Amino acid sequence: MHRHLKLGIFGFGIVGQGLYRVLEETRGIKAEILKICVKDKNKKRSLPAKYFTFEKEDILENPDVDVVLELIDDPEAAFEIVKTAMQKGKAVVTANKKMVADHMIELYEMQNDYNVPLLYEGACCASIPIIRNLEEYYDNDLLSAVEGIFNGSTNYILTKVFSEQKSIPEALAEAQNLGYAETDPSLDIEGFDAKYKLCIILTHAFGLFVDPSDITNIGMHKISDFDIKIARERGFKIKLVAKSRKIDDKVAAFVIPQFVSENSELYKVEREFNAVIVEGAFSEHQFFIGKGAGGYPTGSAVLSDISALTYNYKYEYKKIQQANDLNISSNIELSIYLRFNNSTSIDKKLFNSILEEYKALENQYIIGKINFGKLIESRWADDPEINIILLENNETEN
Amino acid sequence: MHRHLKLGIFGFGIVGQGLYRVLEETRGIKAEILKICVKDKNKKRSLPAKYFTFEKEDILENPDVDVVLELIDDPEAAFEIVKTAMQKGKAVVTANKKMVADHMIELYEMQNDYNVPLLYEGACCASIPIIRNLEEYYDNDLLSAVEGIFNGSTNYILTKVFSEQKSIPEALAEAQNLGYAETDPSLDIEGFDAKYKLCIILTHAFGLFVDPSDITNIGMHKISDFDIKIARERGFKIKLVAKSRKIDDKVAAFVIPQFVSENSELYKVEREFNAVIVEGAFSEHQFFIGKGAGGYPTGSAVLSDISALTYNYKYEYKKIQQANDLNISSNIELSIYLRFNNSTSIDKKLFNSILEEYKALENQYIIGKINFGKLIESRWADDPEINIILLENNETEN
Repeated sequence: MHRHLKLGIFGFGIVGQGLYRVLEETRGIKAEILKICVKDKNKKRSLPAKYFTFEKEDILENPDVDVVLELIDDPEAAFEIVKTAMQKGKAVVTANKKMVADHMIELYEMQNDYNVPLLYEGACCASIPIIRNLEEYYDNDLLSAVEGIFNGSTNYILTKVFSEQKSIPEALAEAQNLGYAETDPSLDIEGFDAKYKLCIILTHAFGLFVDPSDITNIGMHKISDFDIKIARERGFKIKLVAKSRKIDDKVAAFVIPQFVSENSELYKVEREFNAVIVEGAFSEHQFFIGKGAGGYPTGSAVLSDISALTYNYKYEYKKIQQANDLNISSNIELSIYLRFNNSTSIDKKLFNSILEEYKALENQYIIGKINFGKLIESRWADDPEINIILLENNETEN
Repeated sequence: MHRHLKLGIFGFGIVGQGLYRVLEETRGIKAEILKICVKDKNKKRSLPAKYFTFEKEDILENPDVDVVLELIDDPEAAFEIVKTAMQKGKAVVTANKKMVADHMIELYEMQNDYNVPLLYEGACCASIPIIRNLEEYYDNDLLSAVEGIFNGSTNYILTKVFSEQKSIPEALAEAQNLGYAETDPSLDIEGFDAKYKLCIILTHAFGLFVDPSDITNIGMHKISDFDIKIARERGFKIKLVAKSRKIDDKVAAFVIPQFVSENSELYKVEREFNAVIVEGAFSEHQFFIGKGAGGYPTGSAVLSDISALTYNYKYEYKKIQQANDLNISSNIELSIYLRFNNSTSIDKKLFNSILEEYKALENQYIIGKINFGKLIESRWADDPEINIILLENNETEN
C-alpha cells in the first residue's frame, strides 16, 4: 500500500526549492525526484545539472515518473502540463490556484476519465489543510459558511498599515522587498488571488463548480488615508476577507475589504498568516490559522499531498453529489461603508436603508444596507474614486 | 469502495444522542444504526424500544454489525467492549480518551493483529480534527510542539472567573448546572482529562507510547483568589494548558495552569472551546480552535470517523516508525510561579534561579526557574497549600 513514488517537477522557484529542501529533510516518505523541468537555461541552480531538463517530454513521456508536481507560475502553461500528465496516467500535485479555479470542471472530469488523482492543498492557503479537512472531516457536515483571510500579501500590507502606522504605498514597497508581494501586485491587492482560492473552496465545501468570473472580488487597492483614519477612530482594522455563506438553497460568495474589531477572530491574524473559519451544523465553529505563503509552508502542503499519494489518496468531491439545487446568488443584503468624493454622483436609492451619512470638503461616505446584486450592478467597485468596505456582522437574508 | 455500514452503538447519553441526530440529518452517508446497547432498563428513551438492547452480545456477536461505536463512560467496560469487537473483526469508533490513553499499546497491536481499524477523533478535543490532521497532514512534517487548551470544563470555569469576575466555586457550580462539568469534576479540574488527550496526541505527533501515569498533570483546583488577583494585576488570564515540546531526542509533556497574556493565541479561547497549536519545521505554526465538548461537536467527530470507515480508513501511526531514540524527559527548565503560605516550608535551593519573591501576612510566592524533574520530585504539586502556575515563554533547554 505504501507506494514508492518517482517525481517529476515543473518549476524550481520558491515553492520548488522549498519542496526540495522539505523532501531532503523528511525521513519516511517514499518519494524521489527524477527530474526538474525549468525554462531558464541561464539561471544558476542550487542543484547539479543532471537533475534539470528543459524539455517537458523528459517528464511527461517518461514512464518511470509516477507523479508530476506542477509548480510554475503561468496558469495556462500549467494547465497544459497537468492535462498531458493526467492523460498519460500520472498523478498530479499542483499549487496553482488560478489554474485550478479556472479549470475546475475539466480537472474534475479528467480525474474521472483518466482515473488519476489531482491534489492541490498548496493552492489554497498554503499550510492550512483546508481542502483536506473539507474532504475528510466536513464531508458529511452541513456547512453554512467558510470564510477568512486567504491572501498573505494583502494581509502583510494591512498589518503594516494598522500595527505600524505605515501608509499603503510604504507597506506595499516593504512587502515587495521582502518577497511578500509581486512586482505587479494587482492579483493580490485586487482580490483575484483570494477569489481563486474561494472558488476552489466552494467546490469542496458546497459542491459548486464556479467560474471565477462569476464571483465578485472587491480589492483593497482603493483604501485611502481617510478610510484608514475612519477605521482607527472606530477601533477597527481593515482586512481583505473572502466569504461564502449558504442560506437555504443559495450560496453567496465574494472577496471584499472588511472592518474588523478586536472581537473578531480575524483581528489578530497578522502579516503573512492566513485564517479559515468554518461553520457547520455539527462541528459548529472552527477556526484555523497558518502561514499562507512562502516556500516552506507551501512546500509542506505539497509534501502532504505527495504523502497522501503514497496511499492512493484522491479527492472524492462528495459535496458535488449533495449539491442538488444549490446556486450561487447575490440576493443577500450587505451592510457597507461607501466612500467617495464630491465629484462623484451616488444614486442613494440603491440602498435599502441608510444608517449614516458624512460629507466634508474632500471625502464623503454613506453607511447603509444594500442588496449585493444591486451593489454589483452599480459598478461602484470599478470606479477608482469609490471605495467599498464591508461592516462586521453584515449579512442578512434579503 | 463506498461501503454501506451497519452500526452497533454502546451508550446513548449526550454523545450517543448527538450522533443519532447528526446521522438522521446527514444525507450521503451510507450508515445505519442496527442496535443501541444501554445499561439502564428504566431510563426513558427518545427512540422506539426496538432499537435498544441490554445485552452486549446482540451487537458483538451479530455478524451484520460492521462498526461498533463505543460511547459509554466507564473506561474499563469500554475497553472490554472494544477488545471483543476488534477480536470479532469489527471496526471500532470510540470517544473515550481515558480508555484509549490507558491502553494505547494494546489498541495499536490489536489493530495490527485483527486487521481492523480503531478511530477516536472524538476522544481528542471533539470537533478539532487534530488526530486526522496529525495522521494526514503532518505525517511527514518534523513537529516540534503540540500544545493547547484540551479541556472544555476547566476553560469554561476559568472564562467565568476572568471575564465575569466569578469565584472558582461559583463558576464551577454554574458549569455543573449547564452540563459543562461533572458532579465529580476532579478528572477535569485536576488535569487528568487533558492529560489523556495529550497522551493520545504524543502517539500521533511524535510516535511515543506513553503511560498516562508517566505524565505529570498539575490541575487548576488550587487556584486561589490571591492567584487570580496577581494574574489580573499583571494583565494575565489563567488557562489550563497541555504542552508537548521536542528538543533534540527528548519530548517534554505535561498539563499545568499557565499565565496567558493578550499576546497569546490562547487568551481569547473562551468557554467550552478548545485550541490546538502545532509547530512544525515546514508548516511552521498552525492554530485550530473548535468546540471541545458537547453532543453535537463530539458527534461530528464520530460522524467523521464513520465516514472515513466507508473508505476503509485506518490510522497509520507513521510517527511510531520514525520515533527511534525519542524519549519522554523532564530534563527541561520551566519558569514558574509558586504560591504558598507562611506555614509551608519551601526549599528554595531547588530553583535554578529566583526572579521574584513576595511575602505577606497570609500568602507568599516565588517566581523562578526550576528543572521540571526537580519540580516533580519536590511533590509541591501534591500539597494542597501550594499552587503552581507556569509563566508564558517559559521553557528552555536545560
